[in-house]
Amino acid sequence: MVAPPAAGLARLRDTSNTRVDATLGALFDARPATEPRLEAAMRHGLLVGGKRLRPLLVYLSGRALGAGDDELDAPAAAIELIHAYSLIHDDLPAMDDDDLRRGQPTVHKAFDEATAILAGDALQALAFEVLASTGHPRLGGLVTTLASAAGRDGMVAGQALDLAAVGGHPNVEALAHMHAHKTGALIVAAVRLGGLIAVDEHDPRLQALIRYARAIGLAFQIHDDVLDVTGDTATLGKTSGADAARAKPTYPGLLGLEGAQHKAQTLIDEAIAALAPLGTNAQPLADLAHYMIERDY
Amino acid sequence: MVAPPAAGLARLRDTSNTRVDATLGALFDARPATEPRLEAAMRHGLLVGGKRLRPLLVYLSGRALGAGDDELDAPAAAIELIHAYSLIHDDLPAMDDDDLRRGQPTVHKAFDEATAILAGDALQALAFEVLASTGHPRLGGLVTTLASAAGRDGMVAGQALDLAAVGGHPNVEALAHMHAHKTGALIVAAVRLGGLIAVDEHDPRLQALIRYARAIGLAFQIHDDVLDVTGDTATLGKTSGADAARAKPTYPGLLGLEGAQHKAQTLIDEAIAALAPLGTNAQPLADLAHYMIERDY
Repeated sequence: MVAPPAAGLARLRDTSNTRVDATLGALFDARPATEPRLEAAMRHGLLVGGKRLRPLLVYLSGRALGAGDDELDAPAAAIELIHAYSLIHDDLPAMDDDDLRRGQPTVHKAFDEATAILAGDALQALAFEVLASTGHPRLGGLVTTLASAAGRDGMVAGQALDLAAVGGHPNVEALAHMHAHKTGALIVAAVRLGGLIAVDEHDPRLQALIRYARAIGLAFQIHDDVLDVTGDTATLGKTSGADAARAKPTYPGLLGLEGAQHKAQTLIDEAIAALAPLGTNAQPLADLAHYMIERDY
Repeated sequence: MVAPPAAGLARLRDTSNTRVDATLGALFDARPATEPRLEAAMRHGLLVGGKRLRPLLVYLSGRALGAGDDELDAPAAAIELIHAYSLIHDDLPAMDDDDLRRGQPTVHKAFDEATAILAGDALQALAFEVLASTGHPRLGGLVTTLASAAGRDGMVAGQALDLAAVGGHPNVEALAHMHAHKTGALIVAAVRLGGLIAVDEHDPRLQALIRYARAIGLAFQIHDDVLDVTGDTATLGKTSGADAARAKPTYPGLLGLEGAQHKAQTLIDEAIAALAPLGTNAQPLADLAHYMIERDY
C-alpha cells in the first residue's frame, strides 16, 4: 500500500502546497493581529489541518480548464480555510472529542475550548473574505459554491448526519449519503471553484469535473475507513482503529475489507472515465485519482 | 425609561421585522431540509435572536441613500443570520454558558451542544449564500464588509477580547475597544451593507452613516450595561444583574450609573450630528438613535 505519488503528481502537489501555504501565511503576516491568541489558534488549526488535498484540486481543475495559478491562489486558500475550521469544530469535546490531529494537539487542547470555537468561526469568515478579494466576475458563483458546500446542505449537514449515526446501523446508501455531505461536498466545491475561475457554470467540462470529484470524494472516504483498519497510528498521525472503537459505521464494516477496497477502485475508474471531455489537460487529475486509494495516510 | 419608539419609527420597525422574518422564513420553507434537526436548531436560534436591530439599520440606511426594500431584503437577512449564529455560539457552555435568551432556552439547551455548534456554523455559511444571491454589482464589497465585520478583526475578536476580560480590570478605553469589535463591527456593517446597495464605497454619505453607526453601536452597548443594573429579568428576557454576578467589566462599573447614562447620551448626540449630510432622508435613523437609549429591554 505504500506507494509514493507519480513523480509528476508529487511535483504538482509540492507547488500547490507551497502556493497555498504562502497565501495562507500572508493572511497572518501582512497585518498586526487584533487578538493574537485567537490568530495563533487559527494558525495552529491551519497547520495541523494536513494534506492540502482541496487546494490541489482547485489548482489542477482550474489549470485543466486554462486558469492561471495566480487566479487560483485565493479560491485554493479559501477552501482550505473552510476545511481547517471544520476540523477544529469536529475535534471539539461536544463533537468527536479528539485530542490529536496529525500527531499534534488539537486546537482546543493546545488552547482552550472557547478559543477553538472562535478560531473556527473566524476561519470560516476569513474564507469568504479571501474569496471576495478576487474581484472575479463570477464571484457570485464562487461564493454560492463555497457557502452551500460548507453549510446546511453540505459539510455541516454531513457532520450532523455523522454524529446522529454513531451507534446506529446505517446501510451502504445512508453511509454514502453522509459522506457525500461531510467530505464530498467540499471536494466537489474545490473543482467547481477552480473550474469557475476559467469557465462558466454551464461548461460541460465543469460538469465532467464535478462527476470526477463526486467519485474521488467517496473513494477518498472509503480509503480513509480502510486505512483505519490497515494503517498504524504513527503513519496515520491519528489513532488507528478509532472508528471501530467508537462504533462508527464504516465501509469495511459494511462491505468487508476487500469489498470496500473493490468499491474504492470502481469509483476511481469512474472518476477517470468522467475526465474524458478534458483530454490530456486532465492527466494530473487522473494521476491524483489513482493516488487517492494508494496513499498510506 | 419605558418609552415606546416614536410612532413613525415603530411602523418602520414593524415593516422591517415583517420583511426580514419573511426572507428568513422562506430560506427554510422553500425546500426540504437535508438534516431536519439541524435546521430546527438554526430556526430556533433565529427566533430567539431578538430585536432585529441590524436588519432595521440595513433598511433605514439603504433607503436613506435611495435603495429599494426589495434590494435590501437579502443583506438584511444576511446580517441577522450572522448575528443569530454569534448568539448561539456565545451562549455555549465553553463561552458565556447561558441557559436563557429572550425567555426561551438557548439552542444548546433546547437541542444539544454539538447541534448548537453546527447550527451556528451553518447560519454563518447561509449568510454568505444569501448575500451572494443578490448578484449585486458591488457583491465583492458586500461580502468583504460582512466577512471582515464578522471575523478576526470584528465580532469574533470582540468575543475573544470579552472572554479574556472576565475577572480583569480594563479601563474605559479597553472596554470600548472590546465593544467596538464585539457588537460595534456588525452594527457598522449593517449600515455599510444597506449603503453599498445604493452607492459606492467612497460616497461621503456612506462615510457619514459609518460614523453614525460607530456612535450608536457603543451607545447601544452602554445602554445594555445600564439595563443590566436598572432592568428586571422579566422585561429583559435574560437574567438581570448577570454582568455584575460574573464580574464582567461594565460602563456603570467604571463610570457610575449616571456617568454611563451621560456617555450614552453624548454618543447619541454625536450620531445625530453625523447624519447632517443625509438631510431629511435620515430622520428615521435619528429617531432610532434616540430610541437606542430609551428602550427598556
